[in-house]
Amino acid sequence: MTRTLGELAALVGGEASGDAALEVTGVAPLEEAGPSQVSFFSNKKYRAAFEASRAGAVIVEPDAAVPAGRAVLRVANAYLAFARISTLFHPPAAAVPELAPQAVVHRSAVVDPSAQLMPLCSVGPGASVGPRTILHPGVHLGEGVRVGADCVLHANVVVRERCVVGDRVILQPGCVIGADGFGYALDLAGEGRGPRHYKVPQVGHVVIEDDVEIGANSCVDRATLGITRVCRGAKIDNLVQIAHNVVVGPLCILASQVGISGSTKLGMGVVAWGQAGLIGHLTIGDRANIAAQAGLARDLEPGERVAGSPATSDVRWARNAAVYDRLTDMRRELRELKKQVERLEQEKKP
Amino acid sequence: MTRTLGELAALVGGEASGDAALEVTGVAPLEEAGPSQVSFFSNKKYRAAFEASRAGAVIVEPDAAVPAGRAVLRVANAYLAFARISTLFHPPAAAVPELAPQAVVHRSAVVDPSAQLMPLCSVGPGASVGPRTILHPGVHLGEGVRVGADCVLHANVVVRERCVVGDRVILQPGCVIGADGFGYALDLAGEGRGPRHYKVPQVGHVVIEDDVEIGANSCVDRATLGITRVCRGAKIDNLVQIAHNVVVGPLCILASQVGISGSTKLGMGVVAWGQAGLIGHLTIGDRANIAAQAGLARDLEPGERVAGSPATSDVRWARNAAVYDRLTDMRRELRELKKQVERLEQEKKP
Amino acid sequence: MTRTLGELAALVGGEASGDAALEVTGVAPLEEAGPSQVSFFSNKKYRAAFEASRAGAVIVEPDAAVPAGRAVLRVANAYLAFARISTLFHPPAAAVPELAPQAVVHRSAVVDPSAQLMPLCSVGPGASVGPRTILHPGVHLGEGVRVGADCVLHANVVVRERCVVGDRVILQPGCVIGADGFGYALDLAGEGRGPRHYKVPQVGHVVIEDDVEIGANSCVDRATLGITRVCRGAKIDNLVQIAHNVVVGPLCILASQVGISGSTKLGMGVVAWGQAGLIGHLTIGDRANIAAQAGLARDLEPGERVAGSPATSDVRWARNAAVYDRLTDMRRELRELKKQVERLEQEKKP
Repeated sequence: MTRTLGELAALVGGEASGDAALEVTGVAPLEEAGPSQVSFFSNKKYRAAFEASRAGAVIVEPDAAVPAGRAVLRVANAYLAFARISTLFHPPAAAVPELAPQAVVHRSAVVDPSAQLMPLCSVGPGASVGPRTILHPGVHLGEGVRVGADCVLHANVVVRERCVVGDRVILQPGCVIGADGFGYALDLAGEGRGPRHYKVPQVGHVVIEDDVEIGANSCVDRATLGITRVCRGAKIDNLVQIAHNVVVGPLCILASQVGISGSTKLGMGVVAWGQAGLIGHLTIGDRANIAAQAGLARDLEPGERVAGSPATSDVRWARNAAVYDRLTDMRRELRELKKQVERLEQEKKP
Repeated sequence: MTRTLGELAALVGGEASGDAALEVTGVAPLEEAGPSQVSFFSNKKYRAAFEASRAGAVIVEPDAAVPAGRAVLRVANAYLAFARISTLFHPPAAAVPELAPQAVVHRSAVVDPSAQLMPLCSVGPGASVGPRTILHPGVHLGEGVRVGADCVLHANVVVRERCVVGDRVILQPGCVIGADGFGYALDLAGEGRGPRHYKVPQVGHVVIEDDVEIGANSCVDRATLGITRVCRGAKIDNLVQIAHNVVVGPLCILASQVGISGSTKLGMGVVAWGQAGLIGHLTIGDRANIAAQAGLARDLEPGERVAGSPATSDVRWARNAAVYDRLTDMRRELRELKKQVERLEQEKKP
Repeated sequence: MTRTLGELAALVGGEASGDAALEVTGVAPLEEAGPSQVSFFSNKKYRAAFEASRAGAVIVEPDAAVPAGRAVLRVANAYLAFARISTLFHPPAAAVPELAPQAVVHRSAVVDPSAQLMPLCSVGPGASVGPRTILHPGVHLGEGVRVGADCVLHANVVVRERCVVGDRVILQPGCVIGADGFGYALDLAGEGRGPRHYKVPQVGHVVIEDDVEIGANSCVDRATLGITRVCRGAKIDNLVQIAHNVVVGPLCILASQVGISGSTKLGMGVVAWGQAGLIGHLTIGDRANIAAQAGLARDLEPGERVAGSPATSDVRWARNAAVYDRLTDMRRELRELKKQVERLEQEKKP
């Protein structure tokens, strides 16, 4: 497939500075792109690569400084334009209707004939799989699970009993939906055999709404009672922990290794960066932003931005962190000042 | 199944304030419970939901403030009572003896006839599976693995060669028992081909004792030599790392994303909260408590409570954290004080 | 198999203080070793166990203090010597050529006849598996994947489409190679249906070079464009996140739960300890050392050593942390000093 540079510019509402008739065959990184490929430049760290690139054209923001002779495609929200052009050249694989003989589908399950069930996946009793959904090898759907249309469940994804997955959901390999939440009641007597942790039944389930993507080996636990919910359009990275009864609001972004403890509710568009941790039972307002490695133990207002552990305003955190880095100096100054004051006190004595 | 409210109160040794003859059909969250269901209230954050609940009765602590007309079941350790009542209505699924034709059992393996082996699980040479144990799809037991009675190994659990799993153990999906520990010796010569990390054979194994539960995608590595051990009744959440030769004592609680480095020994009932990290070769006393995101690099006495990274007493940590949040102010005060003292020094000069 | 103590000493270039003719049957931990086994001592924490050990001989560093009568094998780099002797007694399992009837190999895939494909693994269209490579149950190789010679892919490993794995690579159970990187462009208009996160196609792949080992449930994401690369001889522990377009240099060591964000490049022999996190687009010099739980947001020079979050020099960090632990005292001193100065000011007034 090829598109002219002019066609690509029209597609994304941008303006091509180079040869509009250039036949473009694909997208490539700045360092690797050839004269028939388009590339993308935004992060200033990569200016040298941008200037040296052999790309046929480079997608840039409207105000980008461009060296003479470099063909560019100028467009507002260049990253989105790049994503759309890349999608044009790399459309997601469509389901090839298939029920592999080595797939195991319970006789009471309902699988849409347009779905693609690859070898070695399994669909439990009463479960259902919607149109054009792809189950890769090693995917296991428990009893009564419902998966909607146009989903991709990559290899070794597990969805436990009764959980619900919407439409256009992507689950990366090894991700686990519906494991038991972590709940025990301390039972000191233990029926006469000494203390034990008595398991609290985790009999709720998980709802993954439409257009959600969840990363490799991430976990969304089922509710103790009721529902753990990941709302429409939320995107979750790898190795993230979502505990029981959490609500991840629409359009949230959770980066890798984030952990959200039980019953915490995230509003719409909340962003949490890598390795941030939230305790349980919090309410996080819409569009709140939680920095990497933050440790959050209080509710957040809409739009609040926090960092650090314990988390505080990100501005305050940055100031404190700068002072912290001079803490040893500060103690030295304090000690010198003490001596000075002592001297002053001595001297005033008759 | 139904039980009267009076029967439930008797079961847990509590006292029902409402109609003892009420027919109870199940448990539900405060917001969703109807007049034939019981619910649970303890966390003050949910008082409004408690007061508005339509539940037939609500399980509460003996000293809970209860609005007029709200039927409750008062009981010491309300959470345990709730767990027991919930278990009554939601007993764990019993094994349905089965050896699915799509399960692969080595001819030298020994599987109890009462066990349930679902499709697409495998049992390696010389491995054994005890009575009433359930292996979900995608569970793989390596050579010589022994799994006891009444266990549930959820989908895609891996237990590598020679590891031992006791009775009544629950392994959530994707959990890995017996991966190689992380051990290499730096070999600068590398047989003449330059430096390399020479793999130290990890030839020990893992013992998971009775009544342990381990969360989704958690990892317990096999010992270099000897045994990595998770002792009876310990409970481990999702995405936790237990390195080689660690001992997790009886009744320990390890929350999600905790990491325990090699050869560290936890005593009985140690609790580590989310994302805490422990370096290797430590000895942690019974009932020690390690806060979320703590970074622990020293031994702990029994009952010691720590927080922060590097971890210190949790009381001290809380005080320091409060001061830290005012660090910028503190520096300003220090600077002003310096100026003041300089002025004093100036003035005293004749 | 047995070897004399003298033979073992010769093998590792060490010197045996005990009976060189002693028949050694294996290696064991200090506490468990019997008179025909050798053990290993280096960490001073275990001196008591060393002194009490019944081992036939103990491998020690040349300068180790040894109690009278304790037979030792003295050798430079005792840990490496131990590793080599342990490998002698525990050679890695060799592949037993096998294509299990329950394995699923696409007709267009190429599997070397010396490879071992255990039951319930799958090899996708156009994929290839090299000589003597072992695929455990539940391993799934996507379309066009290439795996080299002498690799071990443990149970439930996933390698997604087009990724490349070199020779002598070990992938522990549940590890995921080639999941989509985490990239979305905010699309406020969303084709008239409101804001959405538009998925940026992740159409690059992953290259795992020779002699790499990756731990259980770790994730290496495919590049957006181009390649995510783990270079020869790097060793990665469990539950580690390697984001899209990262380069992990040769001989790097990444401990458990480390997270490396997109496009960060690690040089040769970089070491990152447990739970450390690196933001994206960094350049980390050769042999840099990043402490456990560090949060790194800047480039590092070769050999630089950092700790803390935000990360600073590890020496500075240790000093600051010591002061931090006395922060409350420091504030008290500051307040007292203020009062003292105020008194001085008062007194000087006539």
